[in-house]
Amino acid sequence: MTRLSHLDETGAAHMVDVGGKGETERVAIAEGCVKMRPETLALIRAGNAAKGDVIGTARIAGIMAAKKTHDLIPLCHPLLLSKIAVDIEADEALPGLRVSATVKLMGKTGVEMEALTAVSVACLTIYDMAKAADKAMIIQDIRLLRKTGGKSGDWSADPINGN
Amino acid sequence: MTRLSHLDETGAAHMVDVGGKGETERVAIAEGCVKMRPETLALIRAGNAAKGDVIGTARIAGIMAAKKTHDLIPLCHPLLLSKIAVDIEADEALPGLRVSATVKLMGKTGVEMEALTAVSVACLTIYDMAKAADKAMIIQDIRLLRKTGGKSGDWSADPINGN
Amino acid sequence: MTRLSHLDETGAAHMVDVGGKGETERVAIAEGCVKMRPETLALIRAGNAAKGDVIGTARIAGIMAAKKTHDLIPLCHPLLLSKIAVDIEADEALPGLRVSATVKLMGKTGVEMEALTAVSVACLTIYDMAKAADKAMIIQDIRLLRKTGGKSGDWSADPINGN
Amino acid sequence: MTRLSHLDETGAAHMVDVGGKGETERVAIAEGCVKMRPETLALIRAGNAAKGDVIGTARIAGIMAAKKTHDLIPLCHPLLLSKIAVDIEADEALPGLRVSATVKLMGKTGVEMEALTAVSVACLTIYDMAKAADKAMIIQDIRLLRKTGGKSGDWSADPINGN
Amino acid sequence: MTRLSHLDETGAAHMVDVGGKGETERVAIAEGCVKMRPETLALIRAGNAAKGDVIGTARIAGIMAAKKTHDLIPLCHPLLLSKIAVDIEADEALPGLRVSATVKLMGKTGVEMEALTAVSVACLTIYDMAKAADKAMIIQDIRLLRKTGGKSGDWSADPINGN
Amino acid sequence: MTRLSHLDETGAAHMVDVGGKGETERVAIAEGCVKMRPETLALIRAGNAAKGDVIGTARIAGIMAAKKTHDLIPLCHPLLLSKIAVDIEADEALPGLRVSATVKLMGKTGVEMEALTAVSVACLTIYDMAKAADKAMIIQDIRLLRKTGGKSGDWSADPINGN
Repeated sequence: MTRLSHLDETGAAHMVDVGGKGETERVAIAEGCVKMRPETLALIRAGNAAKGDVIGTARIAGIMAAKKTHDLIPLCHPLLLSKIAVDIEADEALPGLRVSATVKLMGKTGVEMEALTAVSVACLTIYDMAKAADKAMIIQDIRLLRKTGGKSGDWSADPINGN
Repeated sequence: MTRLSHLDETGAAHMVDVGGKGETERVAIAEGCVKMRPETLALIRAGNAAKGDVIGTARIAGIMAAKKTHDLIPLCHPLLLSKIAVDIEADEALPGLRVSATVKLMGKTGVEMEALTAVSVACLTIYDMAKAADKAMIIQDIRLLRKTGGKSGDWSADPINGN
Repeated sequence: MTRLSHLDETGAAHMVDVGGKGETERVAIAEGCVKMRPETLALIRAGNAAKGDVIGTARIAGIMAAKKTHDLIPLCHPLLLSKIAVDIEADEALPGLRVSATVKLMGKTGVEMEALTAVSVACLTIYDMAKAADKAMIIQDIRLLRKTGGKSGDWSADPINGN
Repeated sequence: MTRLSHLDETGAAHMVDVGGKGETERVAIAEGCVKMRPETLALIRAGNAAKGDVIGTARIAGIMAAKKTHDLIPLCHPLLLSKIAVDIEADEALPGLRVSATVKLMGKTGVEMEALTAVSVACLTIYDMAKAADKAMIIQDIRLLRKTGGKSGDWSADPINGN
Repeated sequence: MTRLSHLDETGAAHMVDVGGKGETERVAIAEGCVKMRPETLALIRAGNAAKGDVIGTARIAGIMAAKKTHDLIPLCHPLLLSKIAVDIEADEALPGLRVSATVKLMGKTGVEMEALTAVSVACLTIYDMAKAADKAMIIQDIRLLRKTGGKSGDWSADPINGN
Repeated sequence: MTRLSHLDETGAAHMVDVGGKGETERVAIAEGCVKMRPETLALIRAGNAAKGDVIGTARIAGIMAAKKTHDLIPLCHPLLLSKIAVDIEADEALPGLRVSATVKLMGKTGVEMEALTAVSVACLTIYDMAKAADKAMIIQDIRLLRKTGGKSGDWSADPINGN
């Protein structure tokens, strides 16, 4: 049976040794969404029309959170991220906001967790800024979309529900 | 139209003034889950049988993250949380792990964001610790289940899909 | 001669005991500015017209920094800030951006340092976001404008240069 | 018109991609000052004569803050700083304290923000430690003095007011 | 058999609920020491004679660390510490430096961990600043000396080895 | 007389310049222990038998603290640690728990402080989780056991008391 790489032979947690790995360019893209009532989305978009603050604040929160990943996830390595971008778009069909994050690194470990953390915290920030209007929002479908680089090679997610 | 409480009259973001609010006991309960392949769940449970580290580590990560909420979510107030509990259970039907968090405070603002942040970071930690075996895991249905206390009163979520 | 309150009788630094102080509402307002070339200001304002990001990002950075004050300034107490607002306005006459911050607390110590820290980090963020265009920007005149509450009472700054 | 490097084509903030940049030695030197009444300066110097704590504490605060720059300024990259030095000197003519910081890195981005952050937080710490005696102190003229290394090459500030 | 208060009935870690506890003044005093060669102590004291930096830096590090206790120790509550003092004295008989920390709070939980954390980090800082001269230093006898306040009442340590 | 490397020629603290140092593999191993009453050890081991949380939580706390070393120890450089492992074992003869930490880096400075910090915070966490049962526990004999790599070469500690 495959072993979980974070557990040693006795099952105890440790931070995996990446000292021997070569430095390659790593990219990870993650996505997620916040589902809400149509009125809540309209409210955010109207606020956005005036000053852009819900989406702008969530984007900044996501970028800053990616840099804190190793401080949040116990067994993640500290990394010198070379790029972080967070995109947030309204989706009337959801209805809600779709968040994606792209993270790059020239280094020894992948940046999947950094991309997923950026998406998660951007979603939490959207919830925080709109919760006075709608406490029933749901954060959904946070997942890795694609990663490139590293010994395990490239990887892409299958579509969800035909998307 | 209702106004988003984090936006002032010009639409600029600010941290809401809670100085005039009374101190009452606030409780918030949030939940979420990580959906995975049955083999991945089996792997985590087997590791867990030996030393309990995936679930134990995710629980600690969730508790510590709740204390960092104001450092992650730009407009959240720093709070003196009086209790944080994170529960993680295997669900063969999902299949995956279900996470819930309960946060308490005697104070002036609600603790919804702290409970949601604890759940999100516990889910991210589960993903991190099992991603060598399964990159296609999805973090789903992170939402507030219930809150009590405060001027806006008690609130409970509707069931999802009849649950 | 007056003694500096952070130095004990031997001159060693310590965090002043505020346990015996009563809780009153404290407010502090601080200000500062970033002086730049007129073209740089035009560039920021044009960017601002499109998406508002320089000013919006600096505002968020100032708010988040106020919450970190006790982690930055060695002898500051951790505080439960109840309100933080940061305002940033263009001033063609400077030319540059003027930043002000208002911080409130119901507590035992003043919030002067929190307001000054919010202003400083908002100014640094403005510098960061515009430095590709203008490295010669100068951060100036960061000072306390007014404080109210607490045993030492209210205080207001004298105008600078007749302002 | 030149574009601000932190704004993408739609004006949204992102962390600039430095993955393709070469590693060179980068040095940045920044300065600033805290202007105060002559009696306040005398008080600090007398305390300093005994134990050196105001200046010593501000120096440590500045060094530690440089390491937190990427946690304070939203779009700064995390960096492996190889040297941080902060110097603080009394200037009777100001009157007040002059602060300068030198930061070095072998890496892909400049360290201007780290040097400016070190100066800003050292100045804030001086204010904090002397504010019981003098709330009217002003933090002034925080600016980059010089940078070397990197694709944009070397740069030096013009003198202020003939200094 | 007594139960460890951090483990619930199933043995899982949680942050103890202190919401129902009354606010009383809590004080905790902890101590520890760094044992070193006599030449190392002489070196520190000589450096200290000139500028006081080893001891001054360790004192600041201890004070700042006390404020981070809840961020370091997973199940500690965030607290509004009202006083932190760290004392460091040379002891020729050890030979080495003795560190003690006093922490105060008006609140619902004890501050033992904050005092012990301040002592530990002050000792680590002493090690760091003198390790170029002496890697064999040992950090010893970190313990709680006394606590007052709270439901469990006052407590004092027994002397070590007749001290 | 040897000079302390953190003090410059005037005795002021600074962060040593490591820019010119070559990157080599560095390893540091540190150890320490928490001495307690036999009943306390039995209590921890019984809890451990059920869910492993005292030891598991302390291990995670130690790993996370190693990553925060540069944020705790004023003159430590930020580092890209490639491995952190913390081991905790019961020792009936002590009686108590023995903690050791191994840290690895491919870089320019040693990782002694990271290993010592991991041990210290793991010991503090053990104290925290068992203090309801035993406030008289003592954290002892925290020291560097061995380091390899770097210009100063390899180093091993002498045994303590014939161990």
